[in-house]
Amino acid sequence: MADVDTRAGSTLVLLRHGESEWNAKNLFTGWVDVDLSDKGREEARRGGQLLAESGIAPAAVHTSVLRRAIRTSEIALHEAGLHWLPVRRSWRLNERHYGALQGKDKAQTLAEFGEEQFMLWRRSFDVPPPPIADDDEFSQSGDARYAALPSELLPRTECLKDVVERMLPYWYDAIVPDLRATGTVLVAAHGNSLRALVKHLDGISDEAIAGLNIPTGIPLVYRLDADLKPTTPGGEYLDPDTAAAAIEAVKNQGKK
Amino acid sequence: MADVDTRAGSTLVLLRHGESEWNAKNLFTGWVDVDLSDKGREEARRGGQLLAESGIAPAAVHTSVLRRAIRTSEIALHEAGLHWLPVRRSWRLNERHYGALQGKDKAQTLAEFGEEQFMLWRRSFDVPPPPIADDDEFSQSGDARYAALPSELLPRTECLKDVVERMLPYWYDAIVPDLRATGTVLVAAHGNSLRALVKHLDGISDEAIAGLNIPTGIPLVYRLDADLKPTTPGGEYLDPDTAAAAIEAVKNQGKK
Repeated sequence: MADVDTRAGSTLVLLRHGESEWNAKNLFTGWVDVDLSDKGREEARRGGQLLAESGIAPAAVHTSVLRRAIRTSEIALHEAGLHWLPVRRSWRLNERHYGALQGKDKAQTLAEFGEEQFMLWRRSFDVPPPPIADDDEFSQSGDARYAALPSELLPRTECLKDVVERMLPYWYDAIVPDLRATGTVLVAAHGNSLRALVKHLDGISDEAIAGLNIPTGIPLVYRLDADLKPTTPGGEYLDPDTAAAAIEAVKNQGKK
Repeated sequence: MADVDTRAGSTLVLLRHGESEWNAKNLFTGWVDVDLSDKGREEARRGGQLLAESGIAPAAVHTSVLRRAIRTSEIALHEAGLHWLPVRRSWRLNERHYGALQGKDKAQTLAEFGEEQFMLWRRSFDVPPPPIADDDEFSQSGDARYAALPSELLPRTECLKDVVERMLPYWYDAIVPDLRATGTVLVAAHGNSLRALVKHLDGISDEAIAGLNIPTGIPLVYRLDADLKPTTPGGEYLDPDTAAAAIEAVKNQGKK
């Protein structure tokens, strides 16, 4: 950790989980708690190897409460010899809640509602899908991990704006204090919770965030100054060539 | 969790990790950070199944900072659908430090030093093995996970008495508050850190603790009263028949 001066700045490492069983099936997932596919596990191992090779040593890890991000952190940290790190988890790092779309086929949804509506739900900043019914088989109503939350806090659908608003308190109250105390923190989470964080860090506009994709399994490193501002806007991927290629691939996801 | 009344009592679940790569090789392990064997992973899965079938739902998990206990907790919790639990880790839950015996073959050590000395190191309450040298290949000197500990706190050998003394502060200051707050806590740890805890809970004498073995991979459930005293001395294994058979097998370990 010779490159970290905690008085002057800190290092934030973001890791998006790899392919899940439902990514592979092209279904909207959101808060449904699916596992990684074999390909996703391999991506997590590669992420751990990249982290180990970089010499960046996080002192703590933060994850969502969803299996695919937790599994990614476990695999990557075992691979990097950092399995012993302190762990914190929060629903505030969960993927965007996809409302009534959870469990639906992306291609069928595109065919049924048309590309304009489909892209609005997928990429608009402030238009959430219809809310999920509590008795929907893909609702999280009754899930023990959310049982302690007041009911008004549990989302039934979310747009990216909602994700930014429920993620930021965790950034300020949990991750930032850890960055201040330890110098280097790993966050293992999801496409949209990480987009929300990157939007905040890089000051990306509500319009421009639609065009930003974060590739899976490749650690994204932000060096932050004493005011938690990135010293390099956009951060740096530990495998920039693969990241650039993956960003293109994600842009085309859901259009097949 | 209908059977837990946090005003009146709480539930503590102890899980000893399954077979490690070095258990299988009959080597003294201690703080050397070996992984589970395939058999050990299967034991962890079975432990998670037993927990799920029991209906006991821990609200938090505490582990050592050693891979075999961490891996056990991860496998068991994924199996039980409790992968999202809050996690805390501490070196105070580590296995007993085996000093200069770490990395040594148990059968060779028995042949070299004789059964009396061998059993004294393995089972006496207050006779530690010789301390390990900092430049020994199996020393934890320089290990990043212990780098923040003042040097006088880092063991170079331990007897069970030492384990009791360094484990108890964590029991009182981390596990007990979690039991009070949540009602049910899982501790995934090691043969000797769990023996130290059981000695405390059941008030076992310094002499009698030598005869107590905790089988691997079978959750041991203690129902505790408001003063953290077991309502059933010795607790209850979730698979009592297999536990009884395993206790016999552990007694004969190292004598082959």
